[in-house]
Parts: sequence; C-alpha cells; structure tokens
Amino acid sequence: MPLKMTIEELRDFFEDVFPQVKEDFVIEEMNEDEITVRLKVSDKHLRPGGTVSGPSMFGLADVCFYLIIMGNVGPKALTVTTNCSIDFMRKPEPRDMIAKARLLKLGKALAVGDVMLYSEGMDKPVAHANVTYSIPPRDEFVR
Amino acid sequence: MPLKMTIEELRDFFEDVFPQVKEDFVIEEMNEDEITVRLKVSDKHLRPGGTVSGPSMFGLADVCFYLIIMGNVGPKALTVTTNCSIDFMRKPEPRDMIAKARLLKLGKALAVGDVMLYSEGMDKPVAHANVTYSIPPRDEFVR
Amino acid sequence: MPLKMTIEELRDFFEDVFPQVKEDFVIEEMNEDEITVRLKVSDKHLRPGGTVSGPSMFGLADVCFYLIIMGNVGPKALTVTTNCSIDFMRKPEPRDMIAKARLLKLGKALAVGDVMLYSEGMDKPVAHANVTYSIPPRDEFVR
Amino acid sequence: MPLKMTIEELRDFFEDVFPQVKEDFVIEEMNEDEITVRLKVSDKHLRPGGTVSGPSMFGLADVCFYLIIMGNVGPKALTVTTNCSIDFMRKPEPRDMIAKARLLKLGKALAVGDVMLYSEGMDKPVAHANVTYSIPPRDEFVR
Repeated sequence: MPLKMTIEELRDFFEDVFPQVKEDFVIEEMNEDEITVRLKVSDKHLRPGGTVSGPSMFGLADVCFYLIIMGNVGPKALTVTTNCSIDFMRKPEPRDMIAKARLLKLGKALAVGDVMLYSEGMDKPVAHANVTYSIPPRDEFVR
Repeated sequence: MPLKMTIEELRDFFEDVFPQVKEDFVIEEMNEDEITVRLKVSDKHLRPGGTVSGPSMFGLADVCFYLIIMGNVGPKALTVTTNCSIDFMRKPEPRDMIAKARLLKLGKALAVGDVMLYSEGMDKPVAHANVTYSIPPRDEFVR
Repeated sequence: MPLKMTIEELRDFFEDVFPQVKEDFVIEEMNEDEITVRLKVSDKHLRPGGTVSGPSMFGLADVCFYLIIMGNVGPKALTVTTNCSIDFMRKPEPRDMIAKARLLKLGKALAVGDVMLYSEGMDKPVAHANVTYSIPPRDEFVR
Repeated sequence: MPLKMTIEELRDFFEDVFPQVKEDFVIEEMNEDEITVRLKVSDKHLRPGGTVSGPSMFGLADVCFYLIIMGNVGPKALTVTTNCSIDFMRKPEPRDMIAKARLLKLGKALAVGDVMLYSEGMDKPVAHANVTYSIPPRDEFVR
C-alpha cells in the first residue's frame, strides 16, 4: 500500500499537532514498512545515574507508532492509543534514542504494531513496545 | 505480611531518590494491600484539548507501583521496571489523577501487580496498567 | 447498567456457541460487576509435574471475559479477542481453576477488562490476564 | 553467541520433556537469531467457522519461544513463562500455522522476545506474541 504522506508532509503535520514536543523528536526515515524517529535526549529526559526515564521511552514509542499510522492513513489527528505494552530490556545510555516502528496490521478501526528502541550506536535494543491505536471513522479526518 | 516502611518513611525515601519528580507526586494512603498516589497535574502534563499526556500517565503508574514494592520490601532503590502494559480506556480530565496499586505477587526476583488510574472525582477508571519489576538480590539494599 | 442476560440464558447461549468446550466450563455466578467461571480440570489440561497447562489457563481467561461481555451486551457471538496479556505468577495445583472477570470498559467498539485465575481453595492468584475484545456493530447481532 | 544445541538435539529434548504435545509441533529451522516451528493443525485445534482456537495459538507461541531459549542456553526444562501478551490481528485459516520467534534479550534471570504467527502460505501475520521467561539458576540444569 503506498504511503499517504511524504516525509516532509509528515514533519509539517507533526509540528502542527504536537507543538509542545516537536523540539524533542526528529523523523529520520520512512518507507511503507518502517519509520525511524530520534528522541533528542536532554536533561529533562534523564534520571539520576545517567539513564533515560521510562516516561521518555514510553513517549518515544507512542509518537513513533503514531507517525507510522499517519504516514499510512493520512493526517487523522484524533487517532488514540488504546494499549501500549513495553518490555524494558537494557539500561539506556544518556544519549539520543532511536525508535523503529513496524505496522503489523492496519484495519478499519485498529492499527497494531511494534516499536524497537535503541540507544544511538548500540546494537541491542533497550526496549520493545507493542502498541494498538484506535482509528476514527473516515469522516472525522482532520485538515 | 507487615509493611517494611511507614508512610512517612516512604515519603522521605521517595524525596531522596527521585528529587526531580518529588513535586509531582503525593503518597496519600498505604496499607498492606494497596497504595494511593496523586499526580498533581500541571501544564507540563497536559496536551492540547486539555487532556493528560500518555507519558504522564505511564509515569504515574510506574511510580505508584514502585512505591508499593518499597513499602513491602523496604528501600531497594535499584529495583527496575521490566514490563508495563497500559490499557487506555477513557479520556482523562485536565485535573489531578489518582492511582491505586495492588501487589499481586512479591517473589524473590519479581514483583507483579496492577495500577488503576482515575481522574480525581471520576468513578470509572481512565487507564489500567499491569507492571512487573525486577528486585535486586538482598545484598544490594540501598541505605 | 443492568445485565442483558440471566445466568441461565448465558449458560444456554454458551452451550449453543461452544459445543466443543461446554463440558470444560461452569458459569458459577454473575452480577453487574463480576462473573465467576470454573475450569473442570481433567487429564487433557495437565502437564507433567501435575500442573495446569498455559493454553488451558489462557482458554479459561478468554472464555470468562467473553462471558462477562455477553452478559452485559447480549448474545453477540462474533465478538473477538484482540489482545490478551497474561502474567503467570504461581504454579497452579492439579485441580479445578476458578476465574473471576471484571469489565473495566464497555465501549461501542471495544471491551476491556481483567481476569484473576485461582487454583480452587488457594487465596493467592495463579495468573492475571488483561483482555481486550472487539465488539461488532449492532446489526451483526446473533440470534 | 553460538547455539548450545543442534536442531536434532533440540528435537530429541522436546520429545523427552513434552511427550503429550510432541505430535503437534515440528521444529523446522533454527539459527542464532530465529527459530521456525510448525503447528500441525488438526480437528482438536479448530473452532466452528473453521478457525484455529486462541489457546492453540497461545500454545504455539509459548512452545516456539521456549525452544529458542533452549537452543541458546541448553536444556533447562524448568524455565517458565512469566508473561505472554498476544495481539490477534487476522482470522487464521483452518490449516497449519508457522511461528517464528526472535530472542531480544537473554539475561541471567529473564529471556524476552517475540513470536510472529502465520497461517501457512499467508504473507501477513495472524498474531504477534511478546513473551518473557524466567530462567532458573545454573545448578538446576536438567539432564
């Protein structure tokens, strides 16, 4: 299925709908199967001991999966998370994190997929999230 | 099993180990079965449309379950989240949130339980989180 | 919200739609908030070492939550599980298991809740399942 | 990390420890990163409407992830599932199912990974499971 937005359109849309976090995230790559999003880690994301906080990782996974849905269905800002399950596997380093999302199912009402989270430059994942979003009916399109 | 800390000891411990978020949370009640924690919702927790952000709710569930473990095993600051699965069921109101955690299993290596999240004054839960923590061996006690 | 079926109607409906497993389960109690279902454990549910198999516990949780939805919405046999997350906490005994389901949200499209699983006569739960079901639109009612 | 068992050793071990289900599963391929296991679907796995039952899919995911752990750590039969979360995404066909497991973390105490489930010959996955196993200390090795 072809994408419904270019990466530039997706970046513009994201800045419009999430002005309060747009400085934290960079959409790096997108194709039909996968999207890559960077969390620009700063002091507010860190915990004592120099590790990235759980809520910051949750937010990265959630944003990354939201963006792959938008790329595939077009800008439906009302889409909401219904479930997110995260396995925390390794301690993150105090540097940028890279998230890669896959869309496993894009149904009429639900989108299901997963997101792998890495500390930049590390081979092995820090965390793995499984996410379900509810997609509003067609006539609730935004824009 | 009797608690290992009073609510006052738990409050002091929390302020020591999480200085960066201590202003956001209030430990309201604690007994052997349940703990109640308030998230003092402020602008930083809100999203456009006047709703509490997903990462804020994740953070509340995670802190609340961490605190019930501490109350039951004593101060082991190294305890870490291994899994958190949240079902988001209703839109939160733009006011304080109340979390209630239950400890379902306290094993030698793992603690398992769940947390119900409410907008203050609402009957029906906004979200339900299931959490697993890994508990370090005895000789890694903090303090 | 009042129930849409009596416990007798629910038992009849269950025998109609699940003839192949009706011998394994007994609907013991039902009210607006909770349903109790027994798994009559026999050889086919056991694993060496005298423990109840994981798939048998999964099946019990799934059936129990299905039945609380039916009791609340009436007989919609097309309802399907979209997610089930189980925490296995204690080894089950080789005897009947008792499941208690709660309905946390009954929306137009999704039902969300949890199920606690016990070995009969044990205080502490063996497993805890969180379940989401997709509910078909109204005109797909069965019967 | 090199595997600790050949595929033939793993097949022999599986027949030894799971005599009651050995007829249902075939270990098809194994390398460091992934294992492929077939569920030979027969009448007992089917539900009316010609679909594979949820407990059968749960069992396949659980066995498949168990086997990739055994291949990587050697035969430790006491390993137990602590959490399994399954997203059911598409209706399975009434034919064999193929499961592919990945090991995302192999720690001293916990193994974490996921399993993709397919109806044989279908491109898109039927279900996706995330699994955590607890691994016993070294001196509890079996055999």
